[in-house]
Amino acid sequence: MYSKVDARIVELLAEIVGPEAVVTSEEGLEPYSHDEMPGWRYMPEVVVKPRSTEEVARVVQLAAEENVPVTPRGLGTGLSGGALPVHGGIVVSMERMNRLIEVDEDNLMAVVEPGLVVGELHKQVEARGLFYPPDPASLDSCSIGGNIAENAGGPRAVKYGITRDYVMGIEAVLPDGSVIRYGGKTVKNVTGYDLANVLIGSEGTLGIITQAILKLIPLPQHRIDLLVPFHSFRDATRTVTEIIRAKRIVPVVLEFMDRESVKACEKYLEKELPFSDAEAQLIVGLDGNRREDIDAQVEVVAEICLEGGADDVLVADSAFQKDQLWHARRVLLETLKAISERVEVEDVVVPRVRIPELISAVEEISERSGFPIVNWGHAGDGNVHVGVLKRGVSDEKWNAELDRVNEAIFESALSLGGMITGEHGIGIFKKRFMPKAVDEPTMAAMRALKRAFDPAGILNPGKVLP
Amino acid sequence: MYSKVDARIVELLAEIVGPEAVVTSEEGLEPYSHDEMPGWRYMPEVVVKPRSTEEVARVVQLAAEENVPVTPRGLGTGLSGGALPVHGGIVVSMERMNRLIEVDEDNLMAVVEPGLVVGELHKQVEARGLFYPPDPASLDSCSIGGNIAENAGGPRAVKYGITRDYVMGIEAVLPDGSVIRYGGKTVKNVTGYDLANVLIGSEGTLGIITQAILKLIPLPQHRIDLLVPFHSFRDATRTVTEIIRAKRIVPVVLEFMDRESVKACEKYLEKELPFSDAEAQLIVGLDGNRREDIDAQVEVVAEICLEGGADDVLVADSAFQKDQLWHARRVLLETLKAISERVEVEDVVVPRVRIPELISAVEEISERSGFPIVNWGHAGDGNVHVGVLKRGVSDEKWNAELDRVNEAIFESALSLGGMITGEHGIGIFKKRFMPKAVDEPTMAAMRALKRAFDPAGILNPGKVLP
Repeated sequence: MYSKVDARIVELLAEIVGPEAVVTSEEGLEPYSHDEMPGWRYMPEVVVKPRSTEEVARVVQLAAEENVPVTPRGLGTGLSGGALPVHGGIVVSMERMNRLIEVDEDNLMAVVEPGLVVGELHKQVEARGLFYPPDPASLDSCSIGGNIAENAGGPRAVKYGITRDYVMGIEAVLPDGSVIRYGGKTVKNVTGYDLANVLIGSEGTLGIITQAILKLIPLPQHRIDLLVPFHSFRDATRTVTEIIRAKRIVPVVLEFMDRESVKACEKYLEKELPFSDAEAQLIVGLDGNRREDIDAQVEVVAEICLEGGADDVLVADSAFQKDQLWHARRVLLETLKAISERVEVEDVVVPRVRIPELISAVEEISERSGFPIVNWGHAGDGNVHVGVLKRGVSDEKWNAELDRVNEAIFESALSLGGMITGEHGIGIFKKRFMPKAVDEPTMAAMRALKRAFDPAGILNPGKVLP
Repeated sequence: MYSKVDARIVELLAEIVGPEAVVTSEEGLEPYSHDEMPGWRYMPEVVVKPRSTEEVARVVQLAAEENVPVTPRGLGTGLSGGALPVHGGIVVSMERMNRLIEVDEDNLMAVVEPGLVVGELHKQVEARGLFYPPDPASLDSCSIGGNIAENAGGPRAVKYGITRDYVMGIEAVLPDGSVIRYGGKTVKNVTGYDLANVLIGSEGTLGIITQAILKLIPLPQHRIDLLVPFHSFRDATRTVTEIIRAKRIVPVVLEFMDRESVKACEKYLEKELPFSDAEAQLIVGLDGNRREDIDAQVEVVAEICLEGGADDVLVADSAFQKDQLWHARRVLLETLKAISERVEVEDVVVPRVRIPELISAVEEISERSGFPIVNWGHAGDGNVHVGVLKRGVSDEKWNAELDRVNEAIFESALSLGGMITGEHGIGIFKKRFMPKAVDEPTMAAMRALKRAFDPAGILNPGKVLP
């Protein structure tokens, strides 16, 4: 159905982006064949690395004319296969469009190119006393364009919201090669249909973002983190709700990890981690501008935790202490990949108060299926990361039963009023489960939206919609 | 091109919603022929008042079958004609779907029907120590469904954002009568295309919202407001930027009014208002959970204002004092309507720091054209309300020159990196100016979006797109 990329097309691409920005060798293409989820690979036929919106537009125009699929790619840290060229064709890597164009301190806005590393954006704006809150775990290596395409979240979403909340304007190339612009350096704008918000979270299937304007906020001047071990998982997750419900305190982060997660990290790091025998650990971050204020909150939160069954409360104030406290959480995905040949991470999301029920259901699924499963994630916003491990599981069993395990996890989340993905996206991996999460009229509207933007189906085909 | 509503269709509508919920008499229809902008009237052929999603869906199905236009309507407080039935047909009034279905204190979410008055939602959630920030000026009479359709803002947007930031899920009826659902009681969700965010701000042209799930946040426990007069407009607006830029304080509100606005209110209220001789007044609101914290901010802000050229700083702490302080701002639109036969309110938005330039441009336009123009609005977020008055302006001049005046205002905003509407919407009034604000490829994408959702063009025709 799609055309192949032949020598003529490669030559035309080289004319657009320059020959040094075209990759066709097998070893050159390999890094673009996968993202951060082990076990999934699709080779592109060619990779191009444009340096301007115009180059992106010309590449897409060419692809449209030649009926070759185009898959946009940020920095390849995705967890749902969104940047993988399922149908081959051209991968458009945004890695060279990586400038922080402007930090506008008067209007509290940043203007960025899509390839900019999110952690670099953090550093640059924080040096000016400003704050860009979204902080996916991969922040030191992921791109802002990928974040916008996936509507990335992260730990700080519980207090500060998600990527969508900070994107005030975009420039994007549509599947016909046209360039659209929506929004600007204003926090309010209702001039016509908000195409920025149509593209945000569309996983690169409706357009390729080539520039964005991001809202910044003042950087909170202090932050204190707590590590809180519980000997009962249920107590830990109930305490999460209690902090927010009873005391109306919304922490900047409210993370949890189960014992299996922490134990795995301990082994991987070859060092003892604090409270590694606890059935669950919470990490609670509190921030603000006045130290007294945060100290008062720390006291309240510590009290709620101890009343809720916590075994202890470890307070981390200095950068060094915080680093220690986050060590396990930060290396967790690496750890799981090191101890298990395959790791399926499902980032289901449920209303915060339903987390204990979700975890119970997942435990039951693990027992019933014989698949080891670890749980961690963003307790504060109900976004639980469920890691299904291929550890002590045969190839046959993995291939035959994984789908059923995933399905059971998704069904649990959905039955609790939740959704099948909170921040990783549908991509390739979850699209077969979409009909469970989205009813037919809603799916039909999604299909109509895709058709409206991409009638020929050349942009990032094989994603999101089953 | 559209069919007329005949007796048979009225009867079918009565079967769906009940005869008591169908209006056909001229005096019954009249209130549905206009919104809050004086001088614009379009009579519906029939008004129906459904009580359930199913009734809305059946009405829309019928309209689709009969090729009759459908115009959804909240409580009619719009300022751009979005709820006016330009092509006649059926007005679907959501006034009877007005329940606050649930305030979920555990998950900090509210579930609402579209006809619920926003001020009522405020009252109910604030009684529980929770907060729904968006606060358009019409909050005591506008509906949450209308707010979502228009992506309403309000004074508190500068700190807390706009309606879009709080809508976590929607149920809606599409132009083919199908019912879609997206989202839930979670702050994160990336399960397929975010149809909630496609519908938010689409001015009732892509779907009719029949239920919504709203994010709540903890209610800040204290708030202090300052009224700050300046004898120079330029000083006032420069001070706005300075508060945010230099001290990284984002007030909960940062409003301004010019002398003409305050003077008009004084006359209308027949009472003296504070500082009515000042060329401009700022209202600065500061909120938080600790009184000491806010007091410290009040001191900093007062100092910046005085250094920036303020004549005085009036601090309002009690509810009574705040009421006094906001009096003029609250009655301003009523005042303008009382003193001027017609009022065109343009809610242009510019990057905050460009407000002084915008105001200068507007003054020049007023002088050049001979149209009296007053300025007020949300200085903190750059959303300026420009009121063009038909006061001492002949009918001939008004009709002949108003368009040119508006055009000049819009051109000024656009040339300063702004947009033609920040929160009121395009509706009928501004659609002819859309080509100035939106380039052709972007407009083409907007048209494709409309066609994808409403190929027959029966939902709220004549709006948004020229």
